[in-house]
Amino acid sequence: MLPLPRVLVFDIFGTVVDWHGSIVQELQQRYPQVDGHAFALAWRAGYQPAMETVRSGGRGWVALDALHRDILDGLLPRFGLAHLGEPERVELNRVWHRLHPWPDSVAGLTRLKVRFTICTLSNGNLGLLTDMAKRAGLPWDCVLGAEVFRVYKPDPRVYLGAAGVFDAAPVELMMVAAHHDDLAAARACGLQTAYIERPLEFGVAQVKDVSPVGANGLHARDLLHLAELLGC
Amino acid sequence: MLPLPRVLVFDIFGTVVDWHGSIVQELQQRYPQVDGHAFALAWRAGYQPAMETVRSGGRGWVALDALHRDILDGLLPRFGLAHLGEPERVELNRVWHRLHPWPDSVAGLTRLKVRFTICTLSNGNLGLLTDMAKRAGLPWDCVLGAEVFRVYKPDPRVYLGAAGVFDAAPVELMMVAAHHDDLAAARACGLQTAYIERPLEFGVAQVKDVSPVGANGLHARDLLHLAELLGC
Repeated sequence: MLPLPRVLVFDIFGTVVDWHGSIVQELQQRYPQVDGHAFALAWRAGYQPAMETVRSGGRGWVALDALHRDILDGLLPRFGLAHLGEPERVELNRVWHRLHPWPDSVAGLTRLKVRFTICTLSNGNLGLLTDMAKRAGLPWDCVLGAEVFRVYKPDPRVYLGAAGVFDAAPVELMMVAAHHDDLAAARACGLQTAYIERPLEFGVAQVKDVSPVGANGLHARDLLHLAELLGC
Repeated sequence: MLPLPRVLVFDIFGTVVDWHGSIVQELQQRYPQVDGHAFALAWRAGYQPAMETVRSGGRGWVALDALHRDILDGLLPRFGLAHLGEPERVELNRVWHRLHPWPDSVAGLTRLKVRFTICTLSNGNLGLLTDMAKRAGLPWDCVLGAEVFRVYKPDPRVYLGAAGVFDAAPVELMMVAAHHDDLAAARACGLQTAYIERPLEFGVAQVKDVSPVGANGLHARDLLHLAELLGC
């Protein structure tokens, strides 16, 4: 039995906030003629390949806001929005700063914060994460992310860098995420791991398999359940 | 007349927390035979020279916790504490994580946070700043510091780096500090500046001159007064 962690580090997109639902909602409001579900999925599908250009060294460090914008510019013609001007593109790209939390996120984090240091550990840039937290009321103790370490998850330097910030052994940190690949990379660095079920991450039309994977130390329905499992 | 800033970035030691009073108090509790005032001043006096070894390139990046510890190890014999063992030294060095806020700090920041993004911009490391905020209830939106940029203030990369994090022009940020040199460096980078009077930064035995300096955009008695000046 491992000791309780001291610091909980959280993946954000999909784990704490609902990127799919938030983007669909904004699309419906701004451009109701567009298939918001397909648009959201296509935007997110560009995420890993865009980060890969940075991970592979093919491109120097670029913050996620800029990668999101590159992907967006590529998508717009496919969705009949090639005519959007610069201010509309800037505004639409900032939807990632305005993502809504899952219904349990604020209450769950507030409970977890009483006993643990709670911290973002996201590929999102710090300004994005700060704007999002301020708007949604996410009560982080600290905002960390790829930008601090200038490499994207799953690079080990992100997980080990977070441990270094808190002068902690990796096992004193617990990575909390709705994605097994993120958790596997954290575990390879020695962090404890907690999986969060987010069956609707990709919307109701594409329900995600959230079956337990044995390697994860904890498996929680949501952040309130995680608080319960951690005795908060 | 400059527009209102969007982000307020705060110096911490002396501006938001009372390092002198906090260290004197801990010394009195742990080692009452020691002159706490002299000890606190001596510890802080080692701060700029220690950072200078990093600034000058004579030493690679080292977090402030490690610099504080080096200074402490050098001080202990002068104060009759050469006998302290490793655990006691570690614990004493962490007093910088436990510094008390000035009486107006939490209330002032809470008011300022309603209208502005409020963010640390300190030479303290992120773990130190996070521990301090959690303990004292400082409601930061984001914790930034020298550690993110791997250079110490007054290096321009710290001030300009903070603007970059928020995708902001320097003038959209306001540096808040009780030290004119920090404010002058921020101003040279294009940031707005607010001076905070902290006449007791060095204790009642050494009251600090807090006369206004014309170059600072704002001059406030404390953080509640700053909130008032900024219309919060």
